Amino acid sequence: MMTNYVFGVDVGGTTVKMGLFDADGNVIDKWEIPTRTEDGGKKILPDIAESIQAKMEEKKIAAEEVAGVGVGVPGPVDGNGIVHKAVNLGWGQFDLKKELTGLLHGMRVEGGNDANVAALGEMWKGGGQGYQNLVAVTLGTGVGGGIIINGEIMTGSTGAGGEIGHIHVEDHETESCGCGNFGCLEEYASATGITRLANRALQASDRDSVLRNGEVSAKTVFDAVKAGDELAIEVARKFGEYLGKGLGVIAGIINPEIFVIGGGVSKAGEVLFDYIKPPFEKTVFQGCKDTVFALATLGNDAGIYGAAKMVLD
Amino acid sequence: MMTNYVFGVDVGGTTVKMGLFDADGNVIDKWEIPTRTEDGGKKILPDIAESIQAKMEEKKIAAEEVAGVGVGVPGPVDGNGIVHKAVNLGWGQFDLKKELTGLLHGMRVEGGNDANVAALGEMWKGGGQGYQNLVAVTLGTGVGGGIIINGEIMTGSTGAGGEIGHIHVEDHETESCGCGNFGCLEEYASATGITRLANRALQASDRDSVLRNGEVSAKTVFDAVKAGDELAIEVARKFGEYLGKGLGVIAGIINPEIFVIGGGVSKAGEVLFDYIKPPFEKTVFQGCKDTVFALATLGNDAGIYGAAKMVLD
Repeated sequence: MMTNYVFGVDVGGTTVKMGLFDADGNVIDKWEIPTRTEDGGKKILPDIAESIQAKMEEKKIAAEEVAGVGVGVPGPVDGNGIVHKAVNLGWGQFDLKKELTGLLHGMRVEGGNDANVAALGEMWKGGGQGYQNLVAVTLGTGVGGGIIINGEIMTGSTGAGGEIGHIHVEDHETESCGCGNFGCLEEYASATGITRLANRALQASDRDSVLRNGEVSAKTVFDAVKAGDELAIEVARKFGEYLGKGLGVIAGIINPEIFVIGGGVSKAGEVLFDYIKPPFEKTVFQGCKDTVFALATLGNDAGIYGAAKMVLD
Repeated sequence: MMTNYVFGVDVGGTTVKMGLFDADGNVIDKWEIPTRTEDGGKKILPDIAESIQAKMEEKKIAAEEVAGVGVGVPGPVDGNGIVHKAVNLGWGQFDLKKELTGLLHGMRVEGGNDANVAALGEMWKGGGQGYQNLVAVTLGTGVGGGIIINGEIMTGSTGAGGEIGHIHVEDHETESCGCGNFGCLEEYASATGITRLANRALQASDRDSVLRNGEVSAKTVFDAVKAGDELAIEVARKFGEYLGKGLGVIAGIINPEIFVIGGGVSKAGEVLFDYIKPPFEKTVFQGCKDTVFALATLGNDAGIYGAAKMVLD
């Protein structure tokens, strides 16, 4: 029996993104359902199962034609598909694969951490196509990461592999990161971090800057950089120093072929690399100097692509 | 046909360590031959092949009884057994597996970087027994590293995986590392680095210290630490801060179960952990705080064990 279809599911805190793909990774359909986090998130998996079954009915797809369902979860998931915790969903520890398989009458299920799964998606159909050793860096509200080695997600021993947002990059930080530590990469390289760096720079001097005339955000900072605003350029330099040095450390440890940079901040485009690459090249182990930098291309769809790919591997 | 034997070979700059093991990893014999680095190291592989064949004759072992030969090399070796460079041996890029297999009449050969291979050895029969996700840290003249994920060596895309001695940990270093960069972990956590930190501390003040009365080395520093010497304790604290923070970053990226600390510096024993763990715990991603620390137990034999294990995997 041919398996012609695969479902990719990306569970977020407010919506569950879902995709139906053919085995070559072409999207057949794409939709969302709300994430019902009440009651410890008990309804989330039944909602997903119901939506998948409704879609199969709608498209007249038999169970035998479906290779399976891949699911990305916002929290640590180990190599056996055990979710250890997903605070935003209300989930504690449980066997995701087993529960969802049960709800889907034995259909194959694979689970992974959402950042890792998105990394797999970018490798398969996004900015990392053609590579097998990849580090995906998501610069959003926080900084997330996913590491792919020889084509496979590096889960880590407790599902915390690739948690690069919380590597220590600054000894003298006085404000704490959301994680409780001080000086995490996320405090400088996330959208929130860039805003914080900009506000600090604005307060530290009364120099002129377009950033004084409106909202300060990662977007307005990089718009100002492109317009030649000196204070914004100084902020971008700080951002780039932390991120460039952090990625240099990651390269020396992992020795990937490519970094794929995604998330909201990456909408600034190639200009990011002007600030990331010089500190990267200055500090990275010489044997890793040629690591490629690319932008992610799948945006919010990286998760459903990667989730589908998990099942096909 | 049963394969009862396996050879493990660890090629160093002055001697080649060799071991004959049974399939359970028991040492049957252990010996060394000189490393002849002249002529671009052309004689090294023929010398190894000859020594293996002589040993087989001596022990009356038939070729069919040998599972193969594993070789650790001091330089990057990729997943296909291609040596990219081994400066200390005079070697450039060549196909180690193919050449040595040819010299051994078709016997199976596996090759790997010596630090990675030693990590595998410590997992198999040393300080990391029972674990499958391990980072071995070798604190010797330099700082080396080997990363094992799900029981397998993480080679990296160009064989530079686990080169943790050259991760950047200090922005304000004025003396360059052997690699040409400034502020590499190796400049503070190697035997040479500890000596340098101690000499700096001795020069920075005229405080009393037993280190003023003789040779300054990693050994004398940690002997002085054990004797309560305050200046030596300050040096150990600096060492521990760099190494603890560095290992914290590695833990956040790799999420291993255990760090296995070896090399000459590790002879100081468990006292090292008193200085490494506090900065580690302070800065590491919270989900990785429980990473285990252990001492390596195989010493210079880790390489031959790991080399043998490569063949058995």
